[in-house]
Amino acid sequence: MGVLGAGQLGRMLALAGYPLELDFHFYDTSGSPSVGLGDITIDTEAKLDNPALADFLNDVDVVTYEFEHLPAQLTQYIESKSTLYPPSKSIEVCQNRAEEKALFTKLGIPTPAYHIVNSLEELKAAVEKLGCPIVTKTTREGYDGKGQFVIRQAEQCEAAWQAIGEGKNGTNTLIAEAFVNFSRELSIIAVRSADDSMKVYPLAENDHHEGILRYSIAPAAKVADDINAQANQYIKELMHELGHVGILTLELFETENGLVANEMAPRVHNSGHWSIEGAHCSQFENHLRAVSGLPLGCTEAQKLTCMINIIGEKGDTGSILSLPYANLHLYGKEEREGRKLGHVTVQADSHEELAWRVKNVASFLPGSPEFKHS
Amino acid sequence: MGVLGAGQLGRMLALAGYPLELDFHFYDTSGSPSVGLGDITIDTEAKLDNPALADFLNDVDVVTYEFEHLPAQLTQYIESKSTLYPPSKSIEVCQNRAEEKALFTKLGIPTPAYHIVNSLEELKAAVEKLGCPIVTKTTREGYDGKGQFVIRQAEQCEAAWQAIGEGKNGTNTLIAEAFVNFSRELSIIAVRSADDSMKVYPLAENDHHEGILRYSIAPAAKVADDINAQANQYIKELMHELGHVGILTLELFETENGLVANEMAPRVHNSGHWSIEGAHCSQFENHLRAVSGLPLGCTEAQKLTCMINIIGEKGDTGSILSLPYANLHLYGKEEREGRKLGHVTVQADSHEELAWRVKNVASFLPGSPEFKHS
Repeated sequence: MGVLGAGQLGRMLALAGYPLELDFHFYDTSGSPSVGLGDITIDTEAKLDNPALADFLNDVDVVTYEFEHLPAQLTQYIESKSTLYPPSKSIEVCQNRAEEKALFTKLGIPTPAYHIVNSLEELKAAVEKLGCPIVTKTTREGYDGKGQFVIRQAEQCEAAWQAIGEGKNGTNTLIAEAFVNFSRELSIIAVRSADDSMKVYPLAENDHHEGILRYSIAPAAKVADDINAQANQYIKELMHELGHVGILTLELFETENGLVANEMAPRVHNSGHWSIEGAHCSQFENHLRAVSGLPLGCTEAQKLTCMINIIGEKGDTGSILSLPYANLHLYGKEEREGRKLGHVTVQADSHEELAWRVKNVASFLPGSPEFKHS
Repeated sequence: MGVLGAGQLGRMLALAGYPLELDFHFYDTSGSPSVGLGDITIDTEAKLDNPALADFLNDVDVVTYEFEHLPAQLTQYIESKSTLYPPSKSIEVCQNRAEEKALFTKLGIPTPAYHIVNSLEELKAAVEKLGCPIVTKTTREGYDGKGQFVIRQAEQCEAAWQAIGEGKNGTNTLIAEAFVNFSRELSIIAVRSADDSMKVYPLAENDHHEGILRYSIAPAAKVADDINAQANQYIKELMHELGHVGILTLELFETENGLVANEMAPRVHNSGHWSIEGAHCSQFENHLRAVSGLPLGCTEAQKLTCMINIIGEKGDTGSILSLPYANLHLYGKEEREGRKLGHVTVQADSHEELAWRVKNVASFLPGSPEFKHS
């Protein structure tokens, strides 16, 4: 199994893949792989004529990725030489918010009103039309709250353009979105095989702080049947349309008028880490099953589960390990502000018990925001 | 984490250890490591002055093992140079059935009547005293039914001596045990830390065929309170007496007169594989926690679980992966008669449902014996 990227998602893919007799070769273009197992090739230039890339492609049967912000020339080249799952179309759409929005619109999936802007003047015009507040984002590369700016008053347009419009290599294309009044953030994760068979995990409720996911509960509480049906329909249509193979994640806002799509990722996702303990077959194993042509595994939740991210500092892991209801997953990374270093999974028989347990775990993790959920 | 041995137990230790940020270096003396991940040093001579051994010891903080039939000079040397957990005393006792019996007797743990014999004449005398049937075993090296011979009539003494008494390098010391009339085989697995804290997994019911474990159910059905208390007491006394650190497994016969100890292993055990999915913290993770000085994890069963060994042939793994209640664990080994190639874990809400599901899985594994349990 060839994997583009060599961070914690690759690590958890490998841990799920060895029991299926898969072996792993990671291709890292960041220069700082943290995966800690398998073979690793480091190639920070990602040049297509690099012998290391040829060796990597010779070594693997199929290529997947744990990170979608990859150069299009690299993924298209790999797709021409080997099997790339999910296909490059999924990457292209997911790494460009403008294409993503266009696809949502094409499939009739509600999404916030938006304008694509390429200059400060266009940004001002968009703010004029949509009204404040406006969420501006770079169309490419943004994740974990990076490359975003919320314009609360029209006077902030200059500041927003300076912050994210002016890039190192010329101006960035931005998307200016109307602010959505949502009651909560949900995500749905699903998996598709090349033969169009699909399985869907239950909706997760996600709690972000400063753009970073902190808590994810699955199955989410109080999901109305029609909301659940909508989410299932949207993700199935997206996977089918993209010819997607592997895991696809769709982030959603729940509003008074139903679900609104925020963004999607063509890979295993932080809001699916609960599935390692919480589902019969985890998102990692199901992704590998799909891209390897194996039957898909059961996506049902086995128990109510909350995933708590460990951000910046590892905290009191000894106390967490002492709890009879917590499972610790560390990623082998050095502490650094805002960095995802690991996660803790907590299970319980009721939402009340879960809330108590999560708060207890969070008390051992410095800087944890308050835990609230539906 | 240094590990002596590089087979499937080492593989599952590593898979449990990466999320605790442990890294693995395996030291293999067999010449055929199958672990498939981590660093591996191969040293088939196991010479103490081998620079590879010095490098291995330099590279690791603590040494454990997945196989107890190790040369005493090697384990004692390692213990003198590094931290060896479980300690060499646990290995010495567990690799020698005579010492093991003596320890059971010392602690008042019932065990079959036995004689240690060093010649055909002594074997005949033992058979005379104990009466047939008699189980004869080499005191060292035997496992998975190897190095055993059942004497059903006194005339078989010569055949038994020829089969297992006469070794390649002189005669073997044998143990001749009175046959135990047992209703079922049970095992208990527990873990102890250096600070004498201990946790015990629920009893498993084991089904062996031709000396090889085929099915293991945990928690075992219909375990009387006094039987459970006995098993807990025995394993705790053994761990304390040995100064054991890590997992210890005790195999037991359930008889009309209570439990009778069969043998023990100072390591993670095939009858504990159910704990990967079935317990909050698996035997592999708890072993690593104990030998690393981390708090022990909860050993409670989360659900009724059966482990089914995959022996000799991998069978129809595609059909097994399609079942919504089975988890597949393959060990990366080539097919060979009698070889442990993997296992399947099945969970259910009742023993009836479990039996049906196990039979279904077994139908995809050629040569599976009939599944029966209490």
